[in-house]
Amino acid sequence: MEIYTGKMARKIIGEGNWEGPTPGLAQGYTQANLVVLPYKYAFDFLLFCQRNPRPCPILEVCERGKYTTTKVASNGDIRRDIPKYRIYEDGNLAREVTSIEDIWQDDFVSFLLGCSFTFESALLKEDIPIRHIEEERNVPMYITNIECAPAGIFSGTMVVSMRPIPRRLVEKAVEITSQFPKVHGAPIHIGNPEGIGIKDITLPDFGDMVTIKDDEVPVFWACGVTPQVAIMRAKPDLVITHAPGHMFITDVRDEELKKDV
Amino acid sequence: MEIYTGKMARKIIGEGNWEGPTPGLAQGYTQANLVVLPYKYAFDFLLFCQRNPRPCPILEVCERGKYTTTKVASNGDIRRDIPKYRIYEDGNLAREVTSIEDIWQDDFVSFLLGCSFTFESALLKEDIPIRHIEEERNVPMYITNIECAPAGIFSGTMVVSMRPIPRRLVEKAVEITSQFPKVHGAPIHIGNPEGIGIKDITLPDFGDMVTIKDDEVPVFWACGVTPQVAIMRAKPDLVITHAPGHMFITDVRDEELKKDV
Repeated sequence: MEIYTGKMARKIIGEGNWEGPTPGLAQGYTQANLVVLPYKYAFDFLLFCQRNPRPCPILEVCERGKYTTTKVASNGDIRRDIPKYRIYEDGNLAREVTSIEDIWQDDFVSFLLGCSFTFESALLKEDIPIRHIEEERNVPMYITNIECAPAGIFSGTMVVSMRPIPRRLVEKAVEITSQFPKVHGAPIHIGNPEGIGIKDITLPDFGDMVTIKDDEVPVFWACGVTPQVAIMRAKPDLVITHAPGHMFITDVRDEELKKDV
Repeated sequence: MEIYTGKMARKIIGEGNWEGPTPGLAQGYTQANLVVLPYKYAFDFLLFCQRNPRPCPILEVCERGKYTTTKVASNGDIRRDIPKYRIYEDGNLAREVTSIEDIWQDDFVSFLLGCSFTFESALLKEDIPIRHIEEERNVPMYITNIECAPAGIFSGTMVVSMRPIPRRLVEKAVEITSQFPKVHGAPIHIGNPEGIGIKDITLPDFGDMVTIKDDEVPVFWACGVTPQVAIMRAKPDLVITHAPGHMFITDVRDEELKKDV
């Protein structure tokens, strides 16, 4: 069965009938990163996102104890509508689960953050190749030396994702992604990995290395893994995120994120 | 003595040598609204601002207990660098003071929000008249029927400021102010006051009425009084704001706010 809409995808996932990664599901609907934190950390984390909008673009915040989304997904359920969650205790991965209903707390605050999947479909539509999709790998990600603005207990350097872009298409890729400020926007850096503290481009800190061809330039975008790294550094006693590649699928069409939602 | 820079203005104000309104001081430097709240309200208020960026554009947040600004003003002191503060208790104005050093609490969180003074100088530069400046009055402000997105204890409708603009210059005024997203941006509404719930344009809820000439259209912008109205509704036990017209003067040049700060 083809899964056509975000709503349909959430229903199938929420009912426990899909536990795999979400890329390819409900094509054209924006997928989002999830961070769930106890209320005592929520101000610091919201401020961290506010101060670092490029890597941490907020799509929706569910207030204390609320698990129903209203802005980016009608009636979405934060506790069930993601195929796989990661639970971190004191900064360490404790376990992966397919629902967080049984551990939900009244003081949980949930953050849905933009994800670069959104602008990738816009790049593909304009015939800009996405190497990690071609090679069926995860996008390569690197910890840079670009300091994020700290906020309370959260601090750290920016994580970037890298896509090799043919030299003649770099300008076009910048133009397209700059239209998506809610999902990381224009590149943070173009070329020369050492310039942002990446010592060896062949050794990503997260994800997989992809081929960079002779006529291609590595182009770096702010990455939604940045807040996760800041969270791991801060070691809150409890935090829940989506498992990598297992995202929250919204009702928002990718192209709607060209404007403010 | 001419006060040339934001830094100079803050020094004179901070030392207690200026207790008057700030318009006209340090021309070209952006002035900001201030809201100081105990930490227990800070997440809700930050989320209210995040959800309502047009009326509540955040320029800087000083974290719990911190009173030194770093982003929009080097070494500014939230406790002293405003000529007049208002202290509200349980939603009621308790008193006005020229310093809050003696009542400062370790749990205070401070928010500096953008102010339309910034785009007014850009309008004037392009020969668009600002009636309330011509008539030496405060800008007229109205409570509309446009609901803000609520957040925790904070809710309410949007407050707008109104400037009569000659019909042939409306497009230009839209174009200029849309370049200033950090200070309310483009108009929220043009013409027809009833369309946004304003029953009598001659009776502003705040500020003073100004003349609207025959060839002029009332143009409405989101206003920084919106969060103050939301705060008054919520009746926190303690909140401190600047007194109207007695703003925090930053080191940021007005034109810098054309981009993100």
